[in-house]
Amino acid sequence: MNSEPTKPSRRTDTREKIIEAAASLIPELGWGDVSSRRVAERAGVNTGVIHYHVESIGELRRIAAVRKIRTFFLDRVGEALAQADPAAAVETMLRALSANEPRDPELLLLYESLVAASRDDQLRAEIAASLAEFRQWLCDWFAARGVTQPLIIAVTLTAALDGYLLQRSLDPSIDPGPLIDGLVGLVRQHLA
Amino acid sequence: MNSEPTKPSRRTDTREKIIEAAASLIPELGWGDVSSRRVAERAGVNTGVIHYHVESIGELRRIAAVRKIRTFFLDRVGEALAQADPAAAVETMLRALSANEPRDPELLLLYESLVAASRDDQLRAEIAASLAEFRQWLCDWFAARGVTQPLIIAVTLTAALDGYLLQRSLDPSIDPGPLIDGLVGLVRQHLA
Repeated sequence: MNSEPTKPSRRTDTREKIIEAAASLIPELGWGDVSSRRVAERAGVNTGVIHYHVESIGELRRIAAVRKIRTFFLDRVGEALAQADPAAAVETMLRALSANEPRDPELLLLYESLVAASRDDQLRAEIAASLAEFRQWLCDWFAARGVTQPLIIAVTLTAALDGYLLQRSLDPSIDPGPLIDGLVGLVRQHLA
Repeated sequence: MNSEPTKPSRRTDTREKIIEAAASLIPELGWGDVSSRRVAERAGVNTGVIHYHVESIGELRRIAAVRKIRTFFLDRVGEALAQADPAAAVETMLRALSANEPRDPELLLLYESLVAASRDDQLRAEIAASLAEFRQWLCDWFAARGVTQPLIIAVTLTAALDGYLLQRSLDPSIDPGPLIDGLVGLVRQHLA
């Protein structure tokens, strides 16, 4: 045991390691089986360290899930929004989401979280807040690019993206073509 | 014990009762905790009766899940398709799905099934087949009503419906208005 106080950077590293371990275990073991012991093993720390960083295993699962769901969408969609043309951005977004493994562990984490959220109001509220933020971000982006009725586009697009990912995890052979045509057509309709 | 052979109608009734019991238990207990014993208790039969009707509890959970997912969509969407106008039908469909409890046990059953499907290829294939059938049914319906590129409409609509239900179970306050405007606009765009 080291009696010196842990440096802030080291503390952050350990916290990150614990969150990443929990996030990787949720799709592997299923939500309910992610215990402090399993996270400690995966992260290579003592169980006590976990309770130093988070209040409970429930809180840790929530932090890990919400973070992964956010990054999943922000990473893929963020890159697409580097494009100037809204219609091209929508196509790039769909292609980026289709390049993924259809049974991506991060998607499985999302479905595990949906089930868990039905029994955990705080988790539900946190995922809902991320979703609202993502929708608003898209809405602002479309508005800034001259799309009329950007809320219609942002809402329809996020619903279609979530449903497409859900369907794709069930049927990996699903063709994104018609959905791209539908959504790009919708965006074009609203380009001034 | 009755030594007379069970009449076919009686046999069917018992089978139905068992499937309904399993379907109601999946969202209550979670997929993995739906055991033969719990189903037998709920259906008011002996555990042996269950194994007379289905090969395993795994098969029973699959039958129950796929049936409920099918009925959930067919019931709500079927009514909307009684309308002659494709744009009005889409609006009615969204309103019918919004009239539901946001945290409907049938939706929770769908998310439990998504998680289970990631570990059960047969379940995954059966849900995917239902989804493909539903999409094709919508596609044929739109084609018969003079919608050009009906596949684009059917694919975009089913993705948006699934995503909307997913988002609504996380955020019950979500407003279907912008999504209705988006999807109705898309359909109108394709009306000859």
